[in-house]
Amino acid sequence: MIRPANLADAALLRTLIRELAEFERELDLCVIEEADLARDGYGSNPKFRALIAEWDGQPAGYAVFFGYYSTWAGPGLYLEDLFVRLPFRGKGIGTALLAAVAQIALQEDRRAMRWEVLDWNQGAIDLYKSLGAEFRDQWRSVLLKDDALRQLAEKTV
Amino acid sequence: MIRPANLADAALLRTLIRELAEFERELDLCVIEEADLARDGYGSNPKFRALIAEWDGQPAGYAVFFGYYSTWAGPGLYLEDLFVRLPFRGKGIGTALLAAVAQIALQEDRRAMRWEVLDWNQGAIDLYKSLGAEFRDQWRSVLLKDDALRQLAEKTV
Repeated sequence: MIRPANLADAALLRTLIRELAEFERELDLCVIEEADLARDGYGSNPKFRALIAEWDGQPAGYAVFFGYYSTWAGPGLYLEDLFVRLPFRGKGIGTALLAAVAQIALQEDRRAMRWEVLDWNQGAIDLYKSLGAEFRDQWRSVLLKDDALRQLAEKTV
Repeated sequence: MIRPANLADAALLRTLIRELAEFERELDLCVIEEADLARDGYGSNPKFRALIAEWDGQPAGYAVFFGYYSTWAGPGLYLEDLFVRLPFRGKGIGTALLAAVAQIALQEDRRAMRWEVLDWNQGAIDLYKSLGAEFRDQWRSVLLKDDALRQLAEKTV
């Protein structure tokens, strides 16, 4: 069963996010708090949306996504997180979460989904390939934050 | 001079977007129309924002960006496009556009910017490195669209 996350899920969502961060070996970078998720994910103009997958009444996985805009092709959905807890893998839950996000994309007249995958996560890569995803391997992902962001903002022409 | 794009810039913005698409060898994928940009970029809930750079009164470059949400670190700005027209390069206009986006990020309490760069665009890569950007090279960029998206949406668990 896939359902939208609601405000009461903020603590659960943080737990699941931290499990994914641990799986991706980035737990040290995961500083989000329950209050951040409650503030940013709900209300009139939420910064993200989330789905929770349940199996036999237990939280089994989740997806977090938000709208993006391609200047080539128009609006799409960006899948920030997709995660299935270890004991619940091999049951099609990841595909079900992806399908639910795809349904939302089409309902909103968004023609594409984008996301990123770690190059060592072969199980995920194989799944995405089997669904017909393209790997845009000539693109490198760039991040600028903290001190570098502040220094950039202070640059004058 | 850097200024926000307004509705009257939709035709100019499409021209600049197509120049970037040609530079990136993806002009065949660039199907956006002026009416799409006018509908999606303005009004009460715009799907993107754009800045135009002018030099001696001439449009010299642009940036397109929108909000994203990191479940590790919270809200940021995603830089979809950054482009400086060939005759205007080497004047610091790219850095000025990046700095303007960074200023908007900080004003909105967003702590990071993310984007992608083509692996053969060494000039851009050098610029981003000089600004302290991180290259997240273990992440692969994935796209799912059109028929594959529709087929995914029709999958049932």
